[in-house]
Amino acid sequence: MTSALQMVQMIRDGETTSVALVTAALDRIAETDAALKAWVWVDRDGALAQAAAMDQLRQSGRAMGALHGVPIGLKDIIDTADMPTECGSVALAGRKPEHDAILVSRLRAAGAVILGKTATTPFAFMDPAATRNPHNLEYSPGGSSAGSAAAVAAGHIPVAIGTQTNGSVIRPASFCGVYGFKPSAGMVPRTGVLRTSETLDQVGVFARYYEDVALVGDVISEFDPADPSSFCRPRPNLLKGVSSEPPIEPNFVWFEMPYFDKLSDDSREGMMAVIDALGGQVEKLDAEGSFSGLVEAQNIIQYYEIARNLAEIREQHNDKLSPQVAKLLAHGATISDEAYQEAVGLRHGAISYFQSFFNDFDAIITPAAPGEAPLFSDGVTGNPIFSTVWTLCGLPCLTVPVLMSKNEMPIGVQLVGGAEEDDRLLRTGSWLLAELNKNQNEPEEPAQN
Amino acid sequence: MTSALQMVQMIRDGETTSVALVTAALDRIAETDAALKAWVWVDRDGALAQAAAMDQLRQSGRAMGALHGVPIGLKDIIDTADMPTECGSVALAGRKPEHDAILVSRLRAAGAVILGKTATTPFAFMDPAATRNPHNLEYSPGGSSAGSAAAVAAGHIPVAIGTQTNGSVIRPASFCGVYGFKPSAGMVPRTGVLRTSETLDQVGVFARYYEDVALVGDVISEFDPADPSSFCRPRPNLLKGVSSEPPIEPNFVWFEMPYFDKLSDDSREGMMAVIDALGGQVEKLDAEGSFSGLVEAQNIIQYYEIARNLAEIREQHNDKLSPQVAKLLAHGATISDEAYQEAVGLRHGAISYFQSFFNDFDAIITPAAPGEAPLFSDGVTGNPIFSTVWTLCGLPCLTVPVLMSKNEMPIGVQLVGGAEEDDRLLRTGSWLLAELNKNQNEPEEPAQN
Repeated sequence: MTSALQMVQMIRDGETTSVALVTAALDRIAETDAALKAWVWVDRDGALAQAAAMDQLRQSGRAMGALHGVPIGLKDIIDTADMPTECGSVALAGRKPEHDAILVSRLRAAGAVILGKTATTPFAFMDPAATRNPHNLEYSPGGSSAGSAAAVAAGHIPVAIGTQTNGSVIRPASFCGVYGFKPSAGMVPRTGVLRTSETLDQVGVFARYYEDVALVGDVISEFDPADPSSFCRPRPNLLKGVSSEPPIEPNFVWFEMPYFDKLSDDSREGMMAVIDALGGQVEKLDAEGSFSGLVEAQNIIQYYEIARNLAEIREQHNDKLSPQVAKLLAHGATISDEAYQEAVGLRHGAISYFQSFFNDFDAIITPAAPGEAPLFSDGVTGNPIFSTVWTLCGLPCLTVPVLMSKNEMPIGVQLVGGAEEDDRLLRTGSWLLAELNKNQNEPEEPAQN
Repeated sequence: MTSALQMVQMIRDGETTSVALVTAALDRIAETDAALKAWVWVDRDGALAQAAAMDQLRQSGRAMGALHGVPIGLKDIIDTADMPTECGSVALAGRKPEHDAILVSRLRAAGAVILGKTATTPFAFMDPAATRNPHNLEYSPGGSSAGSAAAVAAGHIPVAIGTQTNGSVIRPASFCGVYGFKPSAGMVPRTGVLRTSETLDQVGVFARYYEDVALVGDVISEFDPADPSSFCRPRPNLLKGVSSEPPIEPNFVWFEMPYFDKLSDDSREGMMAVIDALGGQVEKLDAEGSFSGLVEAQNIIQYYEIARNLAEIREQHNDKLSPQVAKLLAHGATISDEAYQEAVGLRHGAISYFQSFFNDFDAIITPAAPGEAPLFSDGVTGNPIFSTVWTLCGLPCLTVPVLMSKNEMPIGVQLVGGAEEDDRLLRTGSWLLAELNKNQNEPEEPAQN
């Protein structure tokens, strides 16, 4: 497997073709996806035609895009005009969007070859998808971006797109042992992406190689006037962030959160080993005071908004909804405007708190998930709570696959940065990876992926 | 005056601020625009607020855009949500668009500060605007992008946006002595730009410094799924094109066109001096056979389509239309579908002809206009015919201000490149400018601007 960045370079240099890369990806999918179930739709002919078109452009000396000829997958809540988009629900079986989501147009115009749609939990909520974890099929890949995480982890494709309203990029990336990156809220256009929560829905990227989260992030970052959370300001250059040296050693903060009793022993031990490896660069703070109520505020906003956004689907297809979605929509509809407004107020307070916070710290270092993935047979996608507060505040989040559970399942370490400072977060991530790499062979240190 | 590229660098380095640059631009406009009439709307307060916001972003260490803090102007057929867009016609007096054109969103998100709207001829057709030529107020700036060309030539702003359906970027740029660049058809999103001819309307850039046509061109180039001529392929990197060395000395072709009897003596002499300076790099071909009928085909397509696109305006406001627009719309409505289809067929043939043509040549070298600008008192905007065929075929066009008429008015030299090879065209333009610069002090050579 090669990184997307390398693939483009190899196509540019004539060392391979998009058709060869896409064919290999389709073959890997054909071999393993019957068991893995990462994909709900694969457009073999369309992808090969698109790959041939990208090769033709290259041969004729035309401009090449940042993702020229690279095979990629999209979570199936992201609209595609040439493939169904069913949002993981039988309620939307056969749904064919008229238009590509804006981020899909961006990917296509950058030369990416969209192989198909990856499995999502129904309406990107908590009922599991059919997808298994590529590291061990007995485990869940997490959710809601289950198929995107699994397809990348299985080596089908170097990169995939997912979304996160609570912890749906960071958690499955952690469980599947890949890089996960959710840019700042408002960075990526959401027009054409299923709206569950206008306040909280955020797009993210899965990748096997670190630099690829930046490569794809740069392509899909753009102002979208039709998206109320999109900001009309210059976007940071993420690839430059990845390859930058910090001016001084970055410093981190570790918040001891009230929900850290949910952390598994091996996950806590691994996190502490990472923090030890970073030596004096990590300050430990107690967060109970400032963060109490934020998890509930996130839940209230998400449930209130999704109940309203999916009200029509509930009316028309209530019998076709999965159990947790049905319960969620019923519950969300009962949340009062007052409770919602109070939660929105708490969110604004938390956003203000973090506005100056990152003057002192480069990143928050925190678990990506409670520990290893849950067993598939448990019928759950894992607890998103380790992402909740950061998603609520729209901060950019990154998980890097550097820990391993006792059962040899991957565990990620999450870094959280300042709003719209995504380049700085990725710079800090590069530094962290290099630092941990230095200590790779010492026995106390966490395993590297 | 400084280039836009330098302005961004100076803001980045803390040597100036956007507020200082924008204030200076507004002051220049206030001083000279009563006589020049390049602007139909200046949003002083809005521009200063936007400039302050860009300075604030820079001070807080946030990402800076490619046009961070640069003052810019927009032809008044390009929609802006915060300023009127009247298309140069009393028929649309007070029109306030709901949304920014996509290209305006791109400019804003790249940090550009939009000072206001520049004068256009009514509906971007042939009736003159009130604008004068900054080199000599007795002369016309040409049209239809009269104000954009004049505002740049007068040093109000480093760059401005215009459009071309026939010769409305290249001609006024030539008359006003600035660089004009019209990218390949389909390169720049047209959603939110007045539609006169869906087949022929194309967006372009005016600049005082050569590299700025590339800087702005890169920002506004993007796939637009709502624009039928927009292509979903990677866009060339224009700034890279400008700064690239050609692998070998580029070669040019000079077509002796049937309409070259319209060329003024000093323009023809200047062109021949340029060709002599390029020595053996220019091949002369006779174009009469292959190009006969193309000028008429362009006219038929433009008139047929504009009559249909503006039919509603004609119905509601026929008494408010300027003379040539009224005549145009009446005439266009009489063009038969058959005549239109035949013209479309001729256009397709011409596009096919050029598809392989640029394997052998880097660029066509050709006049940008018949000669110097017409006198303002003549009540015309000049003949667009030197652009007609290239616009018809959607080829990228560049004019560089390197000649001077006997009356000391500027005359441009036009280069035309292969479709979607805009980077190569700009690379060839860089080479040409350097080559002419070498010979600058020899008496026979054309004057440099």
